[in-house]
Amino acid sequence: MTEEIRFDENGLVPAVVQDYKSGRVLMVAYMNAEALQRTRETGQTWFFSRRRNCLWMKGETSGHRQKVKQMMYDCDRDALLILVEQTGAACHTGHYSCFYQDLEGNEVENKLVDPALMYATG
Amino acid sequence: MTEEIRFDENGLVPAVVQDYKSGRVLMVAYMNAEALQRTRETGQTWFFSRRRNCLWMKGETSGHRQKVKQMMYDCDRDALLILVEQTGAACHTGHYSCFYQDLEGNEVENKLVDPALMYATG
Repeated sequence: MTEEIRFDENGLVPAVVQDYKSGRVLMVAYMNAEALQRTRETGQTWFFSRRRNCLWMKGETSGHRQKVKQMMYDCDRDALLILVEQTGAACHTGHYSCFYQDLEGNEVENKLVDPALMYATG
Repeated sequence: MTEEIRFDENGLVPAVVQDYKSGRVLMVAYMNAEALQRTRETGQTWFFSRRRNCLWMKGETSGHRQKVKQMMYDCDRDALLILVEQTGAACHTGHYSCFYQDLEGNEVENKLVDPALMYATG
């Protein structure tokens, strides 16, 4: 239950997003209580942007949405794991996963789409 | 590279640990620069405990260690993904993964081992 989630001092909890089919970890983002509520109500992932200080729906501009399949919390109730059906690329760079570089800076995954096309208008 | 990782205002970065074989997300924990350095040097996962305010090696008392297979950072360089070979259970509760409950509080995974045995001495 939402009220059992232990949000941090900024009212946020980290959410790990994983593709339910491939098992690939796609991204880590943060939810506040409202983002979590919207995610549960809509079945699409919503997050809180710490940089922009606002709620955002994943794929709102790119169309690369995440349909929620299952949501779990961990033993400490201070982290979420969200299994999703990912449309297109999860990363704004056009990569399927945001984790596309190893610690040596090598790309371990090619781009799925051209990022210029992800956010093209009209 | 370590110097490129964007640690937060507390000098920490969240690390998602995933079983490299099963693809199961096992836990989320935090690393400071020293924990990351020890992880890279030893090939075993080290974390920083926010509650106990100290470094700890995963499996130090339980023996349920994590051998590092691959480490990645994300597009923002403020989260890590660590693929590991997990010995035994990752969770202190005896569950294979710390994410063993869905948001309704249902256990989605049975215990792998008796936690009393994980931390037994002698």
